Amino acid sequence: MERHFHEQLQELKKKLTTMSRSVEESIEKSIRSFMLRDAGLADEVFRMDDVINRMEMDIDDDCLKLLALQQPLAADLRFIMAAMKINNDLERMGDHSVNIAGYAKSLIGTEAVPPINRIPAMAKIALGMVSESLAAFVEGDADRARLVCLKDDEVDAMDDAIFKEVLRLPHPGPESVSRSLALVLASKNIERIADLSTNIAEEVIFIVQARTIKHHSELSVIEDRRAR
Amino acid sequence: MERHFHEQLQELKKKLTTMSRSVEESIEKSIRSFMLRDAGLADEVFRMDDVINRMEMDIDDDCLKLLALQQPLAADLRFIMAAMKINNDLERMGDHSVNIAGYAKSLIGTEAVPPINRIPAMAKIALGMVSESLAAFVEGDADRARLVCLKDDEVDAMDDAIFKEVLRLPHPGPESVSRSLALVLASKNIERIADLSTNIAEEVIFIVQARTIKHHSELSVIEDRRAR
Repeated sequence: MERHFHEQLQELKKKLTTMSRSVEESIEKSIRSFMLRDAGLADEVFRMDDVINRMEMDIDDDCLKLLALQQPLAADLRFIMAAMKINNDLERMGDHSVNIAGYAKSLIGTEAVPPINRIPAMAKIALGMVSESLAAFVEGDADRARLVCLKDDEVDAMDDAIFKEVLRLPHPGPESVSRSLALVLASKNIERIADLSTNIAEEVIFIVQARTIKHHSELSVIEDRRAR
Repeated sequence: MERHFHEQLQELKKKLTTMSRSVEESIEKSIRSFMLRDAGLADEVFRMDDVINRMEMDIDDDCLKLLALQQPLAADLRFIMAAMKINNDLERMGDHSVNIAGYAKSLIGTEAVPPINRIPAMAKIALGMVSESLAAFVEGDADRARLVCLKDDEVDAMDDAIFKEVLRLPHPGPESVSRSLALVLASKNIERIADLSTNIAEEVIFIVQARTIKHHSELSVIEDRRAR
C-alpha cells in the first residue's frame, strides 16, 4: 500500500508537469498571436483552454481520491494540498493566456504600438518562472523556488515600464486608444502569470520548510495535537 | 468525536463568513476610494489586506488540521476541499480590491472621466455576488448558487460597456490616457471579483450535487473504489 501510494504521488507530479507544459505552450501561443496579430494562433489558445480545464478537473479528482483512500498525514497531506493549489494556479494561468489571445484578436488589422516590443522579453521571464516553479515543486527544491520569487520584481518593473510608455504615446483617436488598452491589459495578464508562478514557488518553499522542520525532529502542530 | 467534528465544520463556515465580510468591506472601500479619489480610504484597503491574508492562512491551517486529524470521507472531504478553494478565492478578491485602491491613488488630483459613473452599479452587483455565493455555501443552497452564476453575464456586459465608452472619449494628453487606463483596469478587477464569486457558486453546486447523488444512493467513485 505504502509503495503504491508513493507511485500515486509520482503520478500526480507527472500530471502536473504535463499540465504545466500545456499551460506554457498556451501562454507562448497567446504571446505569438498577440505579437503577430494572428487569429489562427489565438483560436488554438481558446481550444487548448478546454484541454487545460479538463486536466485541472482530472488532477483535482486524483487529489480527492488520494485524500479519501490513503488518508495521508503531515508531509504527504501538505504535498497533496500544495498539488491542489498548484493545479488551480496553472488553470488560472491558462485563463490569462486566453485573455491575451482575446486582446490579440482585438488588434487584428491594426498597426503595432512601439511598447509592444517589450512584451516578448517580459513573457520570456514569466514563462521561465512557470517552468522553474514546477521544476522546484517536482524536485522539492526550495532554493530553486526562491529564485522564481526574485524574478517577480523584474516582471513587475517591465509591466510598469510598458504602462508608462503607453502614457507618453499620442492618442489621436479611438483606434489608438484601443491598441494601447489591449497592450496594457496583455502586460497585466503576463504580470499575473508571473504572480501565480510566485504563488507556486512559495507553496514549494512552504512544503520543503515543513519537511525540514520535521527532519529536525521538532514536532509539527498537527503531530503535537495528535499526541495529546 | 463525530459531534466535535461537526462543530469544527460549523466553525469553518463561520470563519469563511467573517472573512467574506472583511473582503466585502475591502472591496466596498476600494470602490469608494476610486470614486472619491480618496487616499485615506485606499490606505485602509492596503491595511485590510494584511488582515485578510492572515485570515486565509488561519483557515488554510484549520482545513489542514481537519484533514489530518479527522480523516474525513466523501461529503465531508469534499466540503473541506471546497472550503480551501473558497478561502483562496476570497483572498484573491482582496488582492483585486488592493489593485482598485492602487488605481484610486493614481487618480488623485485628477478629474473623473464620465464612464466612471457606471462603476458603482457594477460593483454593487459584484458585491452581491460575493455575499450570495458565501450564503449559498453556508446554507448548502445550489439554487442560490445558480443565481450567482447568472449575474456574472451582467457584470461582463457592464465591463464591456465601460471599455467601449472609454474608446469613444477624447484623449488629448497623457493625463487623460492615464485616467482611462485606471478606469478600464478597475473595471476588469471588478469583473474578476464577479468571476471569483462564480467560482465559489460553482463549487457550492458541485458539493450539493455530490451530496444529492449520494442521497439517491448511487455510490460515488470514491466509495466504489473503497468497496473493492
